[in-house]
Amino acid sequence: MEKYYLGVDIGGMSVKAGVVGAEGKIAVKDSCVTRIDGGTEAFIGDVHNLCVKVAAAKGLKLSDLSGIGMGIPGTVDSRRGIVTYSGNLDFKRTNVFREWQKFSEVTIKIGNDANCAALGETRFGGGGGVRNSVLVTLGTGVGTGFIVDNKIFEGKNGEGAEGGHICVKMNGEKCTCGERGCWEAYASAAALVKQTARAIKKHPESLMREIYAERGELSARIAFDAFKKGDKTAENVVKRYVRYVATGITTMVNIFRPDVVIIGGGVSHEGEYFIKMVERLVRRHAFGGRFNKVPPVVGATLGNDAGIIGSAAMTM
Amino acid sequence: MEKYYLGVDIGGMSVKAGVVGAEGKIAVKDSCVTRIDGGTEAFIGDVHNLCVKVAAAKGLKLSDLSGIGMGIPGTVDSRRGIVTYSGNLDFKRTNVFREWQKFSEVTIKIGNDANCAALGETRFGGGGGVRNSVLVTLGTGVGTGFIVDNKIFEGKNGEGAEGGHICVKMNGEKCTCGERGCWEAYASAAALVKQTARAIKKHPESLMREIYAERGELSARIAFDAFKKGDKTAENVVKRYVRYVATGITTMVNIFRPDVVIIGGGVSHEGEYFIKMVERLVRRHAFGGRFNKVPPVVGATLGNDAGIIGSAAMTM
Repeated sequence: MEKYYLGVDIGGMSVKAGVVGAEGKIAVKDSCVTRIDGGTEAFIGDVHNLCVKVAAAKGLKLSDLSGIGMGIPGTVDSRRGIVTYSGNLDFKRTNVFREWQKFSEVTIKIGNDANCAALGETRFGGGGGVRNSVLVTLGTGVGTGFIVDNKIFEGKNGEGAEGGHICVKMNGEKCTCGERGCWEAYASAAALVKQTARAIKKHPESLMREIYAERGELSARIAFDAFKKGDKTAENVVKRYVRYVATGITTMVNIFRPDVVIIGGGVSHEGEYFIKMVERLVRRHAFGGRFNKVPPVVGATLGNDAGIIGSAAMTM
Repeated sequence: MEKYYLGVDIGGMSVKAGVVGAEGKIAVKDSCVTRIDGGTEAFIGDVHNLCVKVAAAKGLKLSDLSGIGMGIPGTVDSRRGIVTYSGNLDFKRTNVFREWQKFSEVTIKIGNDANCAALGETRFGGGGGVRNSVLVTLGTGVGTGFIVDNKIFEGKNGEGAEGGHICVKMNGEKCTCGERGCWEAYASAAALVKQTARAIKKHPESLMREIYAERGELSARIAFDAFKKGDKTAENVVKRYVRYVATGITTMVNIFRPDVVIIGGGVSHEGEYFIKMVERLVRRHAFGGRFNKVPPVVGATLGNDAGIIGSAAMTM
């Protein structure tokens, strides 16, 4: 009989769950709204109900599954089953294993959501099944996930892998975390929006200003769109942003030297030309580039399913 | 019968070897000069002779040993036994396993020297036997070694763990590696000497200038010595240098979240007050410091023996 796994991707807005086959394909999936105002027990009850429902849609009970994995935003102590802290879910030292046991005897695994996504992309997505990878998610923030020897690397008590908060510029831009000069403050989509706004102010003749006026809101795409239409100011914004992205990735490569670097998140949808620009810089600046083999940089391919697939993969 | 291991620490100037017990104590040690002008085979022959000699001093043959480990400066592919590149030894894709087999049938293990030292300090030195650590060596350069789950973490083909070359200041100081803004360009002993020279030029009234005149040469110690005597300029130099050191360590902590951070190398001999200054900043700036437990920062304790002990520990 074929083996099936359940992957749950818990987010601040919604909880997504899917039954996943051994080849990393989603057989069936479903979701529910994240309700945390009723307390932790009620919330885990919702998650449990969703799991039962999605398994049933495939004709399975929870006990029929070969594994249930959950990706949770925040600091996750996967060994002890405790979420040390999650701003999105208002969890503080929450024992998820114990809460889950109130609803089911089937054991679960939990992990940080970004780490689970990294595992999914590495095994079944852009990584193509390598054993060592770095996933960089360029979204509102900069998330990182490290797969070392086919396993999620999370540091003591799941408190590591915070690659968005490496310092790339001492005394530099203020970061949401309170520090200065974090990579996230330069390479996130939010940072690119700021960089775009500054450039428009300084160069009102830029095509970016027109696009902004048309669309009515600033976004990370404006600079890329104007760049592709030949706007010089946009070109400078994009090239500088690419340098920011490549700087952090080069640091990751110098430390981890993985088989591959995978870029995901909203900005990665810019496509192959953007990924190649980043790769070129990483290859040029990585340590010992002349003697050592610098890993390729590729785009993520699983999109929003990476969390479900990776959470399931954690139990494979 | 008690188990003994052989640790070999290969350096650009000398080769040191020691018989090490299971508790990480050196029973007997010896050394020879590094001669590379006779070619690789002759050099490995020298290393072999040293091994035979030091084992014999303990009444042992090589085949009596429970393991032989060698730490080598450069990029070491420990799995395949190949030194991809070593500037110090003029090795390029040198197959050390094969060269060794010309002299002995006993198998050996090889690793990067800094990584071996990290393993030694973690198991038997400042680390006190934890399973996860970061060793930072503040010497002419900045070296890093990572112990993850009791094993050396070296990245693909041994090309990772180059923590000295993480970027801490984009477009910053020029580094010996050719890049700009590397941590090493701010936190090495050589960098501190440069920072001291600049401060003396700018503030000729500083006590550092007198100490420099007395000793006749610049060194990393001048700033510390003047600082301890109350010199204000020296205080600024030291405090800024401590910030540089802490910045890179904070990045390592955010990524690895180890059990402990160990500082070794010449600058670490400054002592406990220096280590504590660094630790205070790391605790203040590490990600999620309020919720997460920031690892302690400690000094290395094995000194020059770390390489021998760690190389032996690699085989335990």
